[in-house]
Amino acid sequence: MAGVPEVPLVSRKAAPPGDAALAAALAERLGRDRIATTPEARDEASRDLWPRSLLWLRADDTPPPPDLICRPRSVEEVAELIRFARERGVAVVPHGARSGVCGGTLHLHGGVALDLRGLDRVRSVDPERLEIEVEAGAMGWPLEQRLAAQGLTLGHFPSSIALSTVGGWVAARGAGQSSSRYGKIEDLLLGLEVVLGTGEVVRLDRPAAGSDLLELFLGSEGILGAITAARLRLFPAPEVQLPRGYRFASLHRALQAMEEIFHAGLRPSVARLYDPFDTWIALGAHAAADGDAGPQLQPPVRADLRTSPERGSLGRKGATLAGSAKKQALQGALSLARPLNLAAGTLRSCLLVLVHEGPAGETRAEAARTRAICAGHGGTDLGEGPGRRWLRKRWAVSYQLPKMFDAGTWVDTCEVATSWGRVEPLYRAIRHAVAPHAFVMAHFSHAWPDGCSIYFTFSGPAPSVERGLRSYDAAWRAALDAAAAEGATITHHHGVGVLKGPWLEAELGAGGLALLQATKRVCDPDGILNPGKLVP
Amino acid sequence: MAGVPEVPLVSRKAAPPGDAALAAALAERLGRDRIATTPEARDEASRDLWPRSLLWLRADDTPPPPDLICRPRSVEEVAELIRFARERGVAVVPHGARSGVCGGTLHLHGGVALDLRGLDRVRSVDPERLEIEVEAGAMGWPLEQRLAAQGLTLGHFPSSIALSTVGGWVAARGAGQSSSRYGKIEDLLLGLEVVLGTGEVVRLDRPAAGSDLLELFLGSEGILGAITAARLRLFPAPEVQLPRGYRFASLHRALQAMEEIFHAGLRPSVARLYDPFDTWIALGAHAAADGDAGPQLQPPVRADLRTSPERGSLGRKGATLAGSAKKQALQGALSLARPLNLAAGTLRSCLLVLVHEGPAGETRAEAARTRAICAGHGGTDLGEGPGRRWLRKRWAVSYQLPKMFDAGTWVDTCEVATSWGRVEPLYRAIRHAVAPHAFVMAHFSHAWPDGCSIYFTFSGPAPSVERGLRSYDAAWRAALDAAAAEGATITHHHGVGVLKGPWLEAELGAGGLALLQATKRVCDPDGILNPGKLVP
Repeated sequence: MAGVPEVPLVSRKAAPPGDAALAAALAERLGRDRIATTPEARDEASRDLWPRSLLWLRADDTPPPPDLICRPRSVEEVAELIRFARERGVAVVPHGARSGVCGGTLHLHGGVALDLRGLDRVRSVDPERLEIEVEAGAMGWPLEQRLAAQGLTLGHFPSSIALSTVGGWVAARGAGQSSSRYGKIEDLLLGLEVVLGTGEVVRLDRPAAGSDLLELFLGSEGILGAITAARLRLFPAPEVQLPRGYRFASLHRALQAMEEIFHAGLRPSVARLYDPFDTWIALGAHAAADGDAGPQLQPPVRADLRTSPERGSLGRKGATLAGSAKKQALQGALSLARPLNLAAGTLRSCLLVLVHEGPAGETRAEAARTRAICAGHGGTDLGEGPGRRWLRKRWAVSYQLPKMFDAGTWVDTCEVATSWGRVEPLYRAIRHAVAPHAFVMAHFSHAWPDGCSIYFTFSGPAPSVERGLRSYDAAWRAALDAAAAEGATITHHHGVGVLKGPWLEAELGAGGLALLQATKRVCDPDGILNPGKLVP
Repeated sequence: MAGVPEVPLVSRKAAPPGDAALAAALAERLGRDRIATTPEARDEASRDLWPRSLLWLRADDTPPPPDLICRPRSVEEVAELIRFARERGVAVVPHGARSGVCGGTLHLHGGVALDLRGLDRVRSVDPERLEIEVEAGAMGWPLEQRLAAQGLTLGHFPSSIALSTVGGWVAARGAGQSSSRYGKIEDLLLGLEVVLGTGEVVRLDRPAAGSDLLELFLGSEGILGAITAARLRLFPAPEVQLPRGYRFASLHRALQAMEEIFHAGLRPSVARLYDPFDTWIALGAHAAADGDAGPQLQPPVRADLRTSPERGSLGRKGATLAGSAKKQALQGALSLARPLNLAAGTLRSCLLVLVHEGPAGETRAEAARTRAICAGHGGTDLGEGPGRRWLRKRWAVSYQLPKMFDAGTWVDTCEVATSWGRVEPLYRAIRHAVAPHAFVMAHFSHAWPDGCSIYFTFSGPAPSVERGLRSYDAAWRAALDAAAAEGATITHHHGVGVLKGPWLEAELGAGGLALLQATKRVCDPDGILNPGKLVP
């Protein structure tokens, strides 16, 4: 398997100028106010939240920016832009809030950044049918707040909820923290409006007959069409939320409990099992620093991320490591991957955080049953504390990540999934493969009757940019090769992007990848949409 | 909208001979024992269980039979057959047990009937991962029995369970009677092995990244590839099964209760609400004829339907009307559609049958909660009786259907689905549209948080074959036009076939249908697979 792909870089100080003629021609079609061509806007549009970018930024490098950013306000304008780009053979990269962490919206072939955040209207909310139709650029957190005021919820709570859009969730097959109860985005999706690479607007629903063509666009990361709106399932807001924590003598016993819970058909909204090192940090830090009380933290609400130059270009937008205590514990020690991995190997006990939610009666019955199952595997009931703390801190995404990179380390997260019988072997295989290159810890979450996701945090040495990139790429290659060899998925909810492109064949199979390529030719005959991603 | 398509017919006494040269050439490739060319086999392969066939049979007519039946025993043989057919430009119609009720496996262009029932091995059962891999030709009932012996269940219980195969379920997007808890076949499907129209064998899993190409084949009714194996989700067999019945003063109140149950996230495996006429028959007939006791009926177990000439060609294979008492009540009166529809309009009270199943604790809590919800809508608790009777009779499919057709009536069933707010308008619209042509009754089932299915039974006059076909086609056209106008699905789990082909555009949208057609060209470039179905 090839490794993490090289990305061409340019100096941020000497980025190539945009295509002024192209911008002028497009301004004539859509209006001047739909176009941005400033160096700042183009620089920001040259990256997403792929942590590898933070290594580039240390050398003040960036991938080549797009020629211009197009900010349409309607599906007709999106179609017009795509027809325009098709006439001229110009690449178009559709994007939402660009909080992807795999480089999925990098501009490998210049052209137009299609910023869909101007399409952010809620077209309809139907509390009877428990359905919403919302445009693709709507940001997650304000949308969820609006629904909460009506006693409703999407049930979709990605850590990036304040940094991501509906369209991005669909394009990357996202999952929220409560996916064990409400499902991943593909379980929530009822319909889509998409502008194909032909410029044609297509509306698709979940069919009861014939092929489900909606599923072509789920996870398609902009290579087939630009998603402009989605119909999503809604749920009544839960009557009760019952948090809980259990401590187990070993990862093995904890995983057995978790598996039994989901095999039995129980559906806690959250089931997060921390591996021994992650548990040690979580329990230790919480005991030392955190009370149980206090309100639940809110995610930073910033509906529009593109205009915040004072915050810097990328670092403040958030990152993927949760919990500031964890970062402090890691900081300064993360270049010592080998000894840390060895030390972590001596730890044993594991924390399982559960949250049950739903109608009061069933939820209490469900919580009682998980308690019995945990007890059956030797789990010590820690009461509500760990679950309450997790709920309170669930949005506490880190704003320290750039500092860690500046301090000579890199950090990234890798989420894979597999079926129950293979979870422990997969965990061991990836730990073993990555250990020479980075420190590794993990939690197990997004459980489902047939399996769960493992969410690894890797951190490695970056005394120089070059050495950082070397250990970063080596860690990822080792992890994804191991995942593919174990028959696991290569991602769970972060998507593919540039980072995992070479491993997509392992996910879809050779036949599946060929079919996707053929589908790409059908939907985007001129290959203008997000070229260079997913398919060869 | 065009009406129900015409199907070319031939006299069964003077069916055209098969293509002997084709049979000889294929026998050379696959072996003589893989080919059937007898008039009996070809006659049987000329139809499925589309009730319209029974009108044709009254005149001893049948659609043109295939040239030959091919019965491969392995995926390699399937691929070989498809390559063979492609070389010669011969049509291939993949089929399982041919219990489809919409003409989906009729041979509109002659060629080869690809009987997949020889691929019936269980490749693996993994009780840990709760997964099974099984070949497409495996019949439903023996498979479920085998799993039950291991404390497992597929959770997929179509009325046709003894008459249908795994591949057929997937190809037609089937649903079982317990779909409200376990999901439709698309919710159960984890992976597929398919031989495309190119002869290429493709293995697809549910991906976590990229497009879900599996969904192209779900509901594709053999136009893209021949399904040769499926990986399906398993469930632990339920600890308890709690049947119940409630009587409501009106359909409206009963539907409100049903909606509230599913909105609240409760998941009874069975929720069947009978409309007033269906309730009158069900309660009346049960009170008169049935005790509560007695063992649950087993479905007729016939693993191989193709060799039963003594049973007649079609009639004894089963049908879609459940409950023999219901048939007796209807028989002889069904040509009086108008007065019966009027009489039915004077009835009011409705029966809701519920079955809760799963782990004992939650299931009891769930049953208590549905009881409270039903009471809140004025539902009278009828105890376990109605639910127990339903469970006992759930497989009592009718063997009387051909007699009803011979007696001068026709009967068919039409299942559509919509979201909760639209269920009653849809019910009224279809009743109103069909009433001039046929007697109509219905039940509401396969409920889901966002809606449910309505399962209509139509019965109309057929004093002659010609007049029967006229009222049959008029009823269907009226029903499907009304469904499309109401924004409902045109089917829920019976598929499209020939019958509903003209309405598929209403289901997929013009853009969706065009995408499906383009996908067909990718997967089956020579258009040999089930030609004339689904796409123009």
